Amino acid sequence: MPATEIIETTLILTGVFAFALSGALLAVRQKFDIVGMAVLATVTAVGGGVIRDVLIGDIPPSALTDPWSLLLPLAATVLTFFFHPRVARMGRTVQLFDAIGLGVFCATATTKAADTGISPMAAVLLGTITGVGGGIVRDVLAGQTPSVLRQDSRLYAIPAVAGSTLVAVAFSFGYSNTVIQGAAAAAICGFRLLALRYKWRAPVPVFRPRT
Amino acid sequence: MPATEIIETTLILTGVFAFALSGALLAVRQKFDIVGMAVLATVTAVGGGVIRDVLIGDIPPSALTDPWSLLLPLAATVLTFFFHPRVARMGRTVQLFDAIGLGVFCATATTKAADTGISPMAAVLLGTITGVGGGIVRDVLAGQTPSVLRQDSRLYAIPAVAGSTLVAVAFSFGYSNTVIQGAAAAAICGFRLLALRYKWRAPVPVFRPRT
Amino acid sequence: MPATEIIETTLILTGVFAFALSGALLAVRQKFDIVGMAVLATVTAVGGGVIRDVLIGDIPPSALTDPWSLLLPLAATVLTFFFHPRVARMGRTVQLFDAIGLGVFCATATTKAADTGISPMAAVLLGTITGVGGGIVRDVLAGQTPSVLRQDSRLYAIPAVAGSTLVAVAFSFGYSNTVIQGAAAAAICGFRLLALRYKWRAPVPVFRPRT
Repeated sequence: MPATEIIETTLILTGVFAFALSGALLAVRQKFDIVGMAVLATVTAVGGGVIRDVLIGDIPPSALTDPWSLLLPLAATVLTFFFHPRVARMGRTVQLFDAIGLGVFCATATTKAADTGISPMAAVLLGTITGVGGGIVRDVLAGQTPSVLRQDSRLYAIPAVAGSTLVAVAFSFGYSNTVIQGAAAAAICGFRLLALRYKWRAPVPVFRPRT
Repeated sequence: MPATEIIETTLILTGVFAFALSGALLAVRQKFDIVGMAVLATVTAVGGGVIRDVLIGDIPPSALTDPWSLLLPLAATVLTFFFHPRVARMGRTVQLFDAIGLGVFCATATTKAADTGISPMAAVLLGTITGVGGGIVRDVLAGQTPSVLRQDSRLYAIPAVAGSTLVAVAFSFGYSNTVIQGAAAAAICGFRLLALRYKWRAPVPVFRPRT
Repeated sequence: MPATEIIETTLILTGVFAFALSGALLAVRQKFDIVGMAVLATVTAVGGGVIRDVLIGDIPPSALTDPWSLLLPLAATVLTFFFHPRVARMGRTVQLFDAIGLGVFCATATTKAADTGISPMAAVLLGTITGVGGGIVRDVLAGQTPSVLRQDSRLYAIPAVAGSTLVAVAFSFGYSNTVIQGAAAAAICGFRLLALRYKWRAPVPVFRPRT
């Protein structure tokens, strides 16, 4: 296995684990039992990728054929079950890993989608869905409005769209390699962390009274 | 492109745009940011068709291969972002276009489903899902009970089922052409508008005390 | 049709009907109209199987090709519409049939999934999704937190996982027959009924104050 692939796999699994932790922690806050924790951990970690695979016809979805996609959410569930106050206090670390996961998920998924011959616009959409879809399903199952849609959230989908666009445009000009994917993933991750640091929000429609 | 196809495409795009406006407006009412507006606009416009395409195996779904399916929701988002009070005041116009969209979506989708060789009953279900599925996903993401299921909504799914049944029955007798689809679409649209005008509701189970 | 197949089909249809009744009853409690009742009855009855079929690529899903999968939810809707107080008072009977359905759904679905050559772990997940997925979609559409995730529910997913694991492990050792499936279905059903009888709950993470 070449070094770049080892790095990519490590980063993806880091993201899967961080996504799973965010699902398990939300389940604890919602007073779910261990089943609810395992379900939220799993859908957060693999939900976006499953939707992507269903839409591009890559069946069964890679989440079902790659054992780590299911084992890591279980590990995150067990860890959070026993040590949830400590995991909750590591909020910033989880956010950092989550940002890494967002970047790697979007960059690799946009490439995977573009490889099927779909249009760049659809590839960007599929890359973004892979990054943010799991969190949306998590929030719906937890009975709350998806955080990525709300005004009070920091930029999350916009970095995902920006980085996925970078990958899709490069792909449509014939450039698709690890360097571009890595740069896009790093850009998404950095953009997201800056948004958290400086409390950036997405534009909100304002009510302008008629004059 | 023959005239009938131009008319059909125009009506479908009218419906996509009306569905997208209803999603973007709901996002404004729920105080979502522009990301939430774009997500609700897109899922309302293409959600039903995507579910249908996944269930009949037409992968990638036409929403991903037809650029207008993604561009029109973006246009509706931008329009609503800047002029939402005006768009909101055009509620009746949006309802009219929404009814047109419902009719055209159901009629064409039932035909598309029946073409795959599926049973008439399944074709009706798929036609109805195409018409009402996007609105259900929109409402779930917005954190409210799907309006199509509630007592306080005007008839919406029942016109869809009635018109889709017309198409499926005609299809099973060997008749499938633009005239039938157009008549069914017009019947659905008219039925829906009459339901709005005369405040028709679907039957509701009543509690009868034991005698 | 051999006797075992008749028994299996009868049990599956019993489960479909019980699941559909639980959906229709929840719709009545949520004050939905007849459309809401039919939608909740149908998604509860066939939702889990549809998700499974989409994920293993069995398209169109068997729910669309088997007429009973759609007719039984309609029958449950009509029955509940006219006699819902009586149906609601039969809560225990519905729970019994629901437990039978859970057992048969999980056992047959795990086998169907394993037959596609997927890993045992993925087969267990797909078997469990088939058993509990419909109820999760039902609860989300009804605007409530999925009961299977909540602390106040009796064991439901855990019997499903346990029985599906039994089937998948036997399958991976080369044993797959009606006896094993029947035993697993009976085990799931019995486990679920005992959980209801003795109010068993899934483990819940506790807050341990730091010492």
